[in-house]
Amino acid sequence: MNGAEALLQTLIDNDVRVCFANPGTSEMHLVAALESYPSMRGVLCLFEGVATGAADGYGRMAGVPAATLLHLGPGLANGLANLHNARRAATPVVNIVGDHAASHQLLDSPLQSDIESAAGTVSSWVGRPTEVDALGPAVLEAIGAGGVSTLIVPADVSWSNGAQPAGRAPSRTSPPASPKISYARDVLSSGESVALLLNGSVLSEEGLAAADRVAQSGNVKLFCPTWPARLRRGVGVPVVTPLSYRAETVREQLAGVKHLLLVETGPPVTSFAYPGQDGRLTPDGATMHELSGGLATLKALADDLAPDVRARKTTPRHVDLPTGALDSDNWAYVLAALLPDNSIVVDEAITSGLQVLPDAFAGAPAHDALGLTGLAIGQGLPLAAGAAIACPQRPVICLEADGSAMYTLSALWTHARERLDITTVILNNRSYAILRAELKRVGAPAEGPGAAAMIDLAGPNLDFVSLSKGMGVPATRASTVEELATQFKAAISEPGPHLIEAVLTGNQ
Amino acid sequence: MNGAEALLQTLIDNDVRVCFANPGTSEMHLVAALESYPSMRGVLCLFEGVATGAADGYGRMAGVPAATLLHLGPGLANGLANLHNARRAATPVVNIVGDHAASHQLLDSPLQSDIESAAGTVSSWVGRPTEVDALGPAVLEAIGAGGVSTLIVPADVSWSNGAQPAGRAPSRTSPPASPKISYARDVLSSGESVALLLNGSVLSEEGLAAADRVAQSGNVKLFCPTWPARLRRGVGVPVVTPLSYRAETVREQLAGVKHLLLVETGPPVTSFAYPGQDGRLTPDGATMHELSGGLATLKALADDLAPDVRARKTTPRHVDLPTGALDSDNWAYVLAALLPDNSIVVDEAITSGLQVLPDAFAGAPAHDALGLTGLAIGQGLPLAAGAAIACPQRPVICLEADGSAMYTLSALWTHARERLDITTVILNNRSYAILRAELKRVGAPAEGPGAAAMIDLAGPNLDFVSLSKGMGVPATRASTVEELATQFKAAISEPGPHLIEAVLTGNQ
Repeated sequence: MNGAEALLQTLIDNDVRVCFANPGTSEMHLVAALESYPSMRGVLCLFEGVATGAADGYGRMAGVPAATLLHLGPGLANGLANLHNARRAATPVVNIVGDHAASHQLLDSPLQSDIESAAGTVSSWVGRPTEVDALGPAVLEAIGAGGVSTLIVPADVSWSNGAQPAGRAPSRTSPPASPKISYARDVLSSGESVALLLNGSVLSEEGLAAADRVAQSGNVKLFCPTWPARLRRGVGVPVVTPLSYRAETVREQLAGVKHLLLVETGPPVTSFAYPGQDGRLTPDGATMHELSGGLATLKALADDLAPDVRARKTTPRHVDLPTGALDSDNWAYVLAALLPDNSIVVDEAITSGLQVLPDAFAGAPAHDALGLTGLAIGQGLPLAAGAAIACPQRPVICLEADGSAMYTLSALWTHARERLDITTVILNNRSYAILRAELKRVGAPAEGPGAAAMIDLAGPNLDFVSLSKGMGVPATRASTVEELATQFKAAISEPGPHLIEAVLTGNQ
Repeated sequence: MNGAEALLQTLIDNDVRVCFANPGTSEMHLVAALESYPSMRGVLCLFEGVATGAADGYGRMAGVPAATLLHLGPGLANGLANLHNARRAATPVVNIVGDHAASHQLLDSPLQSDIESAAGTVSSWVGRPTEVDALGPAVLEAIGAGGVSTLIVPADVSWSNGAQPAGRAPSRTSPPASPKISYARDVLSSGESVALLLNGSVLSEEGLAAADRVAQSGNVKLFCPTWPARLRRGVGVPVVTPLSYRAETVREQLAGVKHLLLVETGPPVTSFAYPGQDGRLTPDGATMHELSGGLATLKALADDLAPDVRARKTTPRHVDLPTGALDSDNWAYVLAALLPDNSIVVDEAITSGLQVLPDAFAGAPAHDALGLTGLAIGQGLPLAAGAAIACPQRPVICLEADGSAMYTLSALWTHARERLDITTVILNNRSYAILRAELKRVGAPAEGPGAAAMIDLAGPNLDFVSLSKGMGVPATRASTVEELATQFKAAISEPGPHLIEAVLTGNQ
């Protein structure tokens, strides 16, 4: 058994069953080994950022990691932005980067570069086995480390014989600690205004139910980040309010809060700095506490503070659908009304979603929303691919901004090749609209032609219908609410990938 | 004057007049400053790899650097692969990366990452001014360092007032050293077989003429790398033979050589390691010498060894154009025969060019060929954009492989937006053909369906005509020699960008 085969066997033995790959010569023995291990699904991506974003989407939905397969330092470089998002999402990923054989690393051949330094910027663990014996144990370490682990595999380690799979990593469950709730209980029952900022695993239905019971017990509001990694939302699910992207609005949301309890998250901060403004969003005079223990702690608090209270669940509501030209205020209500039950909604709508998306989709059938955790745009289309592969029975709806779509557009080809049930809606406002807003917010002078040339995406207009068809994904264009509704119904009723270009010409 | 304005003024004062940009919020003051400095041309790119590849193409042709403008760590990450190629090409690039304001860097906001570590993998110089006074001098350092210099600009340094432009960097010309030629002269006139391996600045017409005169003086052959950064080639230009991509062929090319003289290059090595093979290509028993002094040394040697000899220039030759289906053996002769005089030919044809491109284009009208120096694919379309902006009077022909095109395809939008005179020919063999060959060469078992799924780009076929039109570049498809000739003539006779998808269905 050569190193490549032992690597695949060890991954499979540890429930890593999908490899999102963009390989090159130094990974050819791993490609060859895929023949002998059909239980590892190789998914070809035409760009490494698609592979890493797909691994993120897979890991968020499957709860076990996918592997990637990238080609040396430049291949890793192309995948870094979406690994950055995966790191911010705390998604498990086994990020495999091939390197030259050891003897060849000395020769400064064209693709030689410093892989470790680049990998370190996104990884919780970086390892490079240099002997075939060390490969299996390194795989277990990579998986055990959690988060994004980068395993650098020199070609000679792949091709050398005498390798052994390393078996299954020992389960690392430790006996659960009894939740420490006395301090939090005192704060929550003090009558003073408390905000719980929830993230991570407690944004599940179970976690939100426990948090909602806690909220009902006192003067408590529930918040989550603007774009969490994975949020259960919609009819039947207790409500949590996302913090706004805009600092001014967050200050209103948190006004009067005396205690901020952080659950699986850090303190709230703005995404960017603005002249003369504080980036910290914790209200003045509020105390801040980290609540450890996650779901178990929330449940213990709920049982203590609200033993007979049931969580409130979002009920269906009727929204009169708007009519006429599509704009940033109406499109989300159309999709929310028509959303298939138990969808996965990938949200990279950016500006087009800031105003209304959270409200519109809160009233939609229950779904999982996957957000742009690290703000590295170009995540949506790849994330949808990975989520669809993790959950082949669930429809995936990908809400994608025009500017962001262009970073990793070739993910559409993988949607088509793997026949994934993804409906992509491109929200085309023909600009980097968020930059238009930000130019004002940073206090820069008024936008003239020089600055506009950096923001305006018209001239030429991107034709996403043509682009999508070029990748093998059938596509249509909608300019009105009625067209969007008709096209979306058709897309979700037919298996396989579809794309709708929603041209937002009304109010931006 | 704020920092952003001082930065632009200092760049302009040092002949940096183009900025390939994909900005975000932290770069908004730089975007705003473009209003006041119209002599800085801002070129918007829809992906950072397009911006960095365009800066490489610009620098190779203009001889002075372009600037980039990238958005924090993830923006830099997306640009790294083409900066890797620029580093290998020794192209000057002022790579500007915006960062959060200093106070904001402490808050671990979503886009925070380790910019320096990522930048260090491709840069000869990395700097981060933290006060507005330090910005101007840092710009001069960045420009003075040569190669890829990464200047990290925190937003508060951009927006703070009290900045001063730093003026023009002192010229650093030192008196030329007298070339030391005695040892090289002895080697060259020894009668033993000598190979000169040329790269860098001596691949100009002047350098090749000097080298050719040296070659005529003895038992001397002239070689260059497979894909040099910039090579003058064609009718009227002395011939240099590129080393083959295949090690077996290089060993034949260099067989019997007793002395290998390296001019602006390192020793020849294979691009990849293969089991049981040495990656070093220096012939057994040959001595290897570095020849310093570049062009001046070659000229001194020519004047010493061949004072009355003129350089031989390639003469026009007649090639009977083939007919019928396009394949990897015939397309290059069609384009070479029709090539406009003094074109810039960007060569990312990869497998489709290995067999015949050097021979075909050696007989074409004189042109500059820009090669894939660092083997990080996805260079061609961006490089063409930068070259066209550096040389607006010269036609640019971009020879692009199907797989490679997909990494940075949105460069086509920049071709259209800037109305660049670029004719792109996509050589579509519907596979990662080089991997098909490499799978055999690394000694992997025969290709079955699992491996084929990692190599085959059919299923679905990429429709480059549709993709190109979606970006605003008119496009046609050619399947025969006759169609390619007709379409290429039409494309080069009309200003602005065009794309031809050449489907290679014959012999691969």
